[in-house]
Amino acid sequence: MPVSTFNADKPVFTLHRGGKLEVSSTVPLTTRDDLSLAYTPGVAEVSKAIAADASLLPSYTWVGNTVAVVTDGTAVLGLGDIGPRAAMPVMEGKAVLFKQFGGVDAVPICLDTRDPDEIVETVIRLAPSFGGINLEDISAPRCFEIERRLDAALPIPVFHDDQHGTAIVVLAALRNAATLIDRKLADLRVVVSGAGAAGVAVTRMLLTAGVGDVVVCDSRGVLHASRGDLNEVKAALAAETNRSGVTGTVVDAIQGADVFIGLSGGKVPEEAVARMAPGGIVFALANPDPEIHPEVARRYAAVVATGRSDFPNQINNVLAFPGVFRGALDAGASSITNAMKLAAADAIAGIVADELRPDAIVPSPLDPRVAPAVGRAVAAAATAAVA
Amino acid sequence: MPVSTFNADKPVFTLHRGGKLEVSSTVPLTTRDDLSLAYTPGVAEVSKAIAADASLLPSYTWVGNTVAVVTDGTAVLGLGDIGPRAAMPVMEGKAVLFKQFGGVDAVPICLDTRDPDEIVETVIRLAPSFGGINLEDISAPRCFEIERRLDAALPIPVFHDDQHGTAIVVLAALRNAATLIDRKLADLRVVVSGAGAAGVAVTRMLLTAGVGDVVVCDSRGVLHASRGDLNEVKAALAAETNRSGVTGTVVDAIQGADVFIGLSGGKVPEEAVARMAPGGIVFALANPDPEIHPEVARRYAAVVATGRSDFPNQINNVLAFPGVFRGALDAGASSITNAMKLAAADAIAGIVADELRPDAIVPSPLDPRVAPAVGRAVAAAATAAVA
Repeated sequence: MPVSTFNADKPVFTLHRGGKLEVSSTVPLTTRDDLSLAYTPGVAEVSKAIAADASLLPSYTWVGNTVAVVTDGTAVLGLGDIGPRAAMPVMEGKAVLFKQFGGVDAVPICLDTRDPDEIVETVIRLAPSFGGINLEDISAPRCFEIERRLDAALPIPVFHDDQHGTAIVVLAALRNAATLIDRKLADLRVVVSGAGAAGVAVTRMLLTAGVGDVVVCDSRGVLHASRGDLNEVKAALAAETNRSGVTGTVVDAIQGADVFIGLSGGKVPEEAVARMAPGGIVFALANPDPEIHPEVARRYAAVVATGRSDFPNQINNVLAFPGVFRGALDAGASSITNAMKLAAADAIAGIVADELRPDAIVPSPLDPRVAPAVGRAVAAAATAAVA
Repeated sequence: MPVSTFNADKPVFTLHRGGKLEVSSTVPLTTRDDLSLAYTPGVAEVSKAIAADASLLPSYTWVGNTVAVVTDGTAVLGLGDIGPRAAMPVMEGKAVLFKQFGGVDAVPICLDTRDPDEIVETVIRLAPSFGGINLEDISAPRCFEIERRLDAALPIPVFHDDQHGTAIVVLAALRNAATLIDRKLADLRVVVSGAGAAGVAVTRMLLTAGVGDVVVCDSRGVLHASRGDLNEVKAALAAETNRSGVTGTVVDAIQGADVFIGLSGGKVPEEAVARMAPGGIVFALANPDPEIHPEVARRYAAVVATGRSDFPNQINNVLAFPGVFRGALDAGASSITNAMKLAAADAIAGIVADELRPDAIVPSPLDPRVAPAVGRAVAAAATAAVA
């Protein structure tokens, strides 16, 4: 259990007093006529119309603009399994970002169960109330099964942000970094350190985008076909990656690699970084302690990114999720496809493409151009797939 | 299935386009500092504090001001079992009223199950996200079991508005009506027509408030101990009511009664009303077609109320639920007790007590004084019970 430093007078607690969200009305309600239109008896007309034609639901309720941010609190930030109640401030923050950047109404749903079957059935029962499901901070490997089953069961988009939000932003950053060092994705040798939610999704996204060689490491070392200790997800990943048959630890894998992507928090010694191919790329994304300190990484790599706001090139999911759901909701998409994720990554990369610098491979998390651009790209990809 | 009259150009549909609710941020989010306080890394402090002390949850998240409006769509308005999707516009309207009058943030949760066990377990799993549960438009007798089990399982208030909201407002109205005709509740002979959610709760509330004699009728007639066709709830009600042993139909029961309370929609012929005790009270609350037309009722009764906004004395739950939850949340109450419901009824009655007229026994549903007064009274009753 993390140590609490509660002090009601600290700015972070005064800010959080009373929470960070509210539900407001978007319609007037001051006269009897207002009341009889927004509520009984008038509202019965709208209910009857939806009862006769459920396709009217997203357009004539808030459902079409509303996403549930669902967690069980098992993998919250770097704090780990702190439970659904302690997860609420983080989910509220997520909801604030959804609205601020994507114009999406997001409702935090913190579930008092960590059983995957119960999580799946609970979200299925809630689903008529929402236009999309953003899964958040659910620990691996449970998160993979939960997302897969919900995506199959529901007619609305389901998106585990820790996986795909991270993967989209990493791909966007890698595209721009590769351009800067004048390399093609297909020719890169990438080491991904971490085989949790983010590591798995980033690896799959890179493969989908055409990266030639990815080697994945977990805390015990390189994933390869001969490892007998792999769960189903990692075994599948081992089969799809590591085409040169690397074994050993992350230090072995990093030798000669063009790109290191840290998604684990496991520290990498400077000697190992020194053995990467020269002029490469380091994304050390563990928060708050990057796998490699960015100042150390800069001695060996041409482009360095972290997850922190106090260094250049912050890889922050907020660049992806508000626009991804904005686009999916606008298109009435039933799921978030690879094509939509790739389009999101391209859109993020495109925002800074004309002004690329080693310390500006991704836009600022506060850049208001990002979410609308991502939204348009995702909606176009969703519509193209249907057409 | 009710007949739809969908027409995108009708005012009720243009008003409902896009829904009636939004989620907004209550904190600033324009700078990096804002982001690092409301979201990572600052938010981790708040999560750690709640992980160490769950009692901080209501104060440092929006949970302490937030109510889930939960339905399965089985008994929506007068439309019946139209399902969770078609119920959404009504639940949104409810949420608008919660905010407008009580300052309560309410989130519509329309469940895709009608199995009582599944509804109960689903709401229990959601509960960490909310400060209270308002059950809505769930059909009887399932609603009784669902509410009872949730109230027992959860440390937050659970309130089935169709039952208790109606009961509170009916009691408020009856108190003022009795004052007008100079009678005590204990001396009244009351006929309640309807043994669904509202009928059962109104009857229990009247008994709790000390009404001397209540006779309840369902669609087959008077509830009495010899009826062999009663479900568990009705059998219990039969045992607690009808002390003079009336049998027969509602027309038999109404003979000589001081008060008629219609909560069923079953019409009552004028000849029956004419046989009530003179100078009595008629609440014909079926919507939109009262059991007795108010103009007919006025020929025989001294005080007449309906559920409609176009006649005097509208018995509308909005007089109760926003203030009931305002008070319960403010007091940190773990349930809504009879004392809190009685306090709510007294507060509603008290608003118009100094200006009582036969056509003004309850405040207007839009009277902004009501919810704060109810909130204060409910919070005081909750606190008194604890002290």
